[in-house]
Amino acid sequence: MDIYGILEKVRTEKPLVHHLTNWVTIYDCANIVKVLGASPVMAHAREESGDMASLASSLVLNIGTLTPEFIESMKIAARAANKKGIPIVLDVCGAGATKLRDEKSFELLDQVKIDVIKGNTSEIARISGENVQTKGVDSVEVEKNLIELAEHLAEQRNSIVVITGKEDIVADKTRHFIVKNGHEMMAHVVGTGCMAASIIGAFSAVHKDLAEAAAGALSVYGIAAELAASESRGPATFKEKLFDNIYRLDRETIEKLQRIG
Amino acid sequence: MDIYGILEKVRTEKPLVHHLTNWVTIYDCANIVKVLGASPVMAHAREESGDMASLASSLVLNIGTLTPEFIESMKIAARAANKKGIPIVLDVCGAGATKLRDEKSFELLDQVKIDVIKGNTSEIARISGENVQTKGVDSVEVEKNLIELAEHLAEQRNSIVVITGKEDIVADKTRHFIVKNGHEMMAHVVGTGCMAASIIGAFSAVHKDLAEAAAGALSVYGIAAELAASESRGPATFKEKLFDNIYRLDRETIEKLQRIG
Amino acid sequence: MDIYGILEKVRTEKPLVHHLTNWVTIYDCANIVKVLGASPVMAHAREESGDMASLASSLVLNIGTLTPEFIESMKIAARAANKKGIPIVLDVCGAGATKLRDEKSFELLDQVKIDVIKGNTSEIARISGENVQTKGVDSVEVEKNLIELAEHLAEQRNSIVVITGKEDIVADKTRHFIVKNGHEMMAHVVGTGCMAASIIGAFSAVHKDLAEAAAGALSVYGIAAELAASESRGPATFKEKLFDNIYRLDRETIEKLQRIG
Repeated sequence: MDIYGILEKVRTEKPLVHHLTNWVTIYDCANIVKVLGASPVMAHAREESGDMASLASSLVLNIGTLTPEFIESMKIAARAANKKGIPIVLDVCGAGATKLRDEKSFELLDQVKIDVIKGNTSEIARISGENVQTKGVDSVEVEKNLIELAEHLAEQRNSIVVITGKEDIVADKTRHFIVKNGHEMMAHVVGTGCMAASIIGAFSAVHKDLAEAAAGALSVYGIAAELAASESRGPATFKEKLFDNIYRLDRETIEKLQRIG
Repeated sequence: MDIYGILEKVRTEKPLVHHLTNWVTIYDCANIVKVLGASPVMAHAREESGDMASLASSLVLNIGTLTPEFIESMKIAARAANKKGIPIVLDVCGAGATKLRDEKSFELLDQVKIDVIKGNTSEIARISGENVQTKGVDSVEVEKNLIELAEHLAEQRNSIVVITGKEDIVADKTRHFIVKNGHEMMAHVVGTGCMAASIIGAFSAVHKDLAEAAAGALSVYGIAAELAASESRGPATFKEKLFDNIYRLDRETIEKLQRIG
Repeated sequence: MDIYGILEKVRTEKPLVHHLTNWVTIYDCANIVKVLGASPVMAHAREESGDMASLASSLVLNIGTLTPEFIESMKIAARAANKKGIPIVLDVCGAGATKLRDEKSFELLDQVKIDVIKGNTSEIARISGENVQTKGVDSVEVEKNLIELAEHLAEQRNSIVVITGKEDIVADKTRHFIVKNGHEMMAHVVGTGCMAASIIGAFSAVHKDLAEAAAGALSVYGIAAELAASESRGPATFKEKLFDNIYRLDRETIEKLQRIG
């Protein structure tokens, strides 16, 4: 897989990546897309979410601070995206924590076509129908073969499934990638999961094989995190360097460091 | 008071700290809780704010960008927290600036049990019934003995009262702490007040004596600020180093620098 | 024009700059006002947006994540500001991207008095009645003499018009300034446009000649960006240094570096 090739396409084509996301990490989601070289936009009003989605090259949905009204705006955006064949990434942030999150996640998955479902282990387990209680938005341990879990959900929902964690898993029905890039420091910064979805959104906008796009995105993100960790003494410096490194990544660095199994 | 002991408990127990807070500093509130070692969550929909509060170990409310609907979600969360004995910190951000803020602050204080009331001098003066006009969300000078002010409100509302400022005051009906840690640079960054409430929330989640929890939290925060100021040349670098230092704080540093009177 | 004199007035008078802005860059808008030495506040509830505007020294409106309800709150704030002669800056963020943005921008311009209209090239073109399709919130090229465009809109709406770009244009009916300060790196960070409006808001709060206030604000901002770029290796470090430099700017630096034509 030519990961740098996809990144270069993002930088050249500057796709518009539309988000309906949570209010906590919305800036970071926008900014990670920006430093990647793409063009982020966030427009959640039901009166324009569909129009904006129609202009975009991909759509990222994140239920981190959902309300029922917000989910309706997501559906409007998603239907517009579906109509035009624009890929949709759904981050099921906090699924398993409350009844509302579960219900609305299933509603989205049932009523619109989601191309990439992304979550941490406990979120994806819950979306797959496992009886897991998520603690807020952070992951809890799941006793289950994660690749099987991902492949099962991919089959069930006819989409790509991404499980983020120490190693990230990207699966469709027939194959899977294990992305080994990344750094432990990512777990000490709010929003690294949300930003992962945004990068996947940007890569999906320019590369048709969405499993490759997701795996490539996570590898690029993880490589930047590894570089950032080596330049920082704490989580806030780390985050700053993460953005800087994504902006600067070149072919040589990516090809030297990428670890996808 | 073994402040480091409380911090260590936060790091070990990783309590879930639920927030219904303002949209300006929501990321920083989440991130300060994260770098402290706890687990932040923000869920404001009335359909889940109570469920999430029931899962949490403490609840932080902040009226910085309130709406009447948002206050209703706060009440739902607060009632769920009250029912389970989960401590609630209320930041009366901007009280005294508008009629809405005053009314809604009093509504919250009257209708649910608040465990820690936190504000700057003019906000707390207003909540105590003094006729003070706050300028936006920044403090104005109040001609009044601040310890008396805090103790009076603590008595009146049967809660801990925190007045932040050059020196922070933490009072209950019978005793008070004066926290002398901190740095002038905190006044040049948006959100340092809001983050103080979040740290108090995290400490309250693991330490039953809430006056000690609040004083310890403010001391830890202030120590990190002192260290950050010595490493930075401006407010943005200062803020980054503040997060880094909270993440790194050890027993030796805290015991050397803590100043609580 | 004594730009430093205006900045010094901001630092001394610490005007309250009220915002009804978007949820993506709201923290940065608040923080840029803070490091400038002024006092930011964000209060969007219709029940208090007018009260808060009445307390303020300027009002900044930004439609980046508009909803119809949010626009109603803006109108309430704007009417209160108009009544008291408090200057209003409107950032027509994303105008031209969707029907909603166009309609609501025109509604605001028709129903309240806006003192400074600010946007990038494609946004201002659209607001002037040109048939331009904006891509999300980023600018597209416009084949048109930009000074004419600005002056035309200034005449039409009886207000100051600011077009941000590689060089910024500030125009009223009879004269214009071209601000040549700034740095290419600003285009790689989310929110630099929004922050420009906030700085203009702070300068407008203390300097009656609003064209001078806007040009001075953009020059100060651009100078800080130039200094920041020379101290950083990527967009996130750049942003941090931008805040630090605004905080530190002195007369000597400004007078040496200011480039206004």
